[in-house]
Amino acid sequence: MSIALQKLRAIQAESGSLLCVGLEPCPEYLFSGITTSASGYKTWLRVLINATHGLVCAYKFNLAFFEALRTEGMDLLYTVREMIPPDVLVIADAKRCDIGSSARRYAMSLYDFLNADAATVNPLMGRDSVEPFLEYRDKLTFLLCLTSNPGAGDFLIGKGLYRDIALKAAEWNEAENVGLVVGATRAIEHIAEIRQAAPTLPFLVPGIGAQGGAAEDVIGAGRIPGDFSGLVFHVTRGILPNEEEQNEEPREVIRRKTLLWRDRIYDAFAESNSTNA
Amino acid sequence: MSIALQKLRAIQAESGSLLCVGLEPCPEYLFSGITTSASGYKTWLRVLINATHGLVCAYKFNLAFFEALRTEGMDLLYTVREMIPPDVLVIADAKRCDIGSSARRYAMSLYDFLNADAATVNPLMGRDSVEPFLEYRDKLTFLLCLTSNPGAGDFLIGKGLYRDIALKAAEWNEAENVGLVVGATRAIEHIAEIRQAAPTLPFLVPGIGAQGGAAEDVIGAGRIPGDFSGLVFHVTRGILPNEEEQNEEPREVIRRKTLLWRDRIYDAFAESNSTNA
Repeated sequence: MSIALQKLRAIQAESGSLLCVGLEPCPEYLFSGITTSASGYKTWLRVLINATHGLVCAYKFNLAFFEALRTEGMDLLYTVREMIPPDVLVIADAKRCDIGSSARRYAMSLYDFLNADAATVNPLMGRDSVEPFLEYRDKLTFLLCLTSNPGAGDFLIGKGLYRDIALKAAEWNEAENVGLVVGATRAIEHIAEIRQAAPTLPFLVPGIGAQGGAAEDVIGAGRIPGDFSGLVFHVTRGILPNEEEQNEEPREVIRRKTLLWRDRIYDAFAESNSTNA
Repeated sequence: MSIALQKLRAIQAESGSLLCVGLEPCPEYLFSGITTSASGYKTWLRVLINATHGLVCAYKFNLAFFEALRTEGMDLLYTVREMIPPDVLVIADAKRCDIGSSARRYAMSLYDFLNADAATVNPLMGRDSVEPFLEYRDKLTFLLCLTSNPGAGDFLIGKGLYRDIALKAAEWNEAENVGLVVGATRAIEHIAEIRQAAPTLPFLVPGIGAQGGAAEDVIGAGRIPGDFSGLVFHVTRGILPNEEEQNEEPREVIRRKTLLWRDRIYDAFAESNSTNA
């Protein structure tokens, strides 16, 4: 089993949390009083990490938001990465995809230089485009399988591609270093099909919270029975202060909301296990 | 028709060239005497641009190679972009893919900040993931359709996905700002099918030269009859000095080989048109 997957299992067990918090320097997410500069985002991301540490199993960088800050964004990415406590899984959500020689550069960039534990990869171009990531046997590579956005209907669902990706991912999982991205907004039957095709792979699950997917449904259809570590739920907007909470201390609001999500997911998992025991 | 596509047509007509040269700061490509530092790559890329200008219709940045140079790579990318003469199409080969709000950031990054005329996008996640790129009506967005690597067999060919992508791309081409990536190493029948599904879309064609695809076959199956502007052939290794040419002046070797490729493609196009007239 890859070191990254061991790390994930350890922190999930210790924290009782399947929650992954997104680190996205996005102007709409900032608290009042913080500027949309690299230093403003740095302050904001530090608050976010401090408020949630101990209640999450992973942090996920969405590289799109850092790239949109140009060279300053790359500095910010590396700086914030250093702020993350060593026991928490670091996921680079980059969704890269290219022929082998180029994919190797992307893998170097995310795994060697940024030192992420895990990354998301787009498998459209097939095995040799994914292989350079899988060669990092100690990391955890999540392949896009069934995404949470409406356009997933075009090819992933429309062509039944999610099934093929799940089957290939299970086949490519020799080093136990492969996972799948499975959106919470999708039909329960699809999620159950993916779990059947890839019985032991961890799922990174976006789409709960602001996007409206129900964590309970995903747990029912997608968990590995009896194993707490098969799911990682991603949330960003869902733990940030909403309009009515703007006058409270941001750190307190975030901590409270993160705790609620952690417990809701923990309880749903316990419930699901007892129902299916 | 998008301004970028007009620009492409104008320079193809003027230069008689369908050739696109790759700008990839890769250690194996460097001439002897040039170091693998950002400044070494800058020197090398300047030679490459100066040696080929006038003989090509486009330059293509592969972002993987720049990202693997970390923050210095981003500076290099922006610096080299400024070296490109204004009449030549600039393609950002980034193969990005994400949900709408993140895809918007990637599009900003490539189209607004880098000021690329065109970009490659991975359409796996469907319409709303591609849309933020297509909203740039003056740019030219190439969707991955049938790539040149072996893994294309896994999903793109295995699931017949290339047909669906070509049909969708034609449907999404309201602003005449969509193109397709179609590898030269693929079966002629597949390329002909894609041309039938997307009769007017420009194809960006990797895989000639070092990867072994025959430009003549692609022209036969993939050209728009009578229209010189439907194809852009990408080449990098094929114009660089090989082992026997290491003692010659790099600039001279590159210019000679680029000229050969330009003329070979031009002649094949003329031949193909007269055969099918």
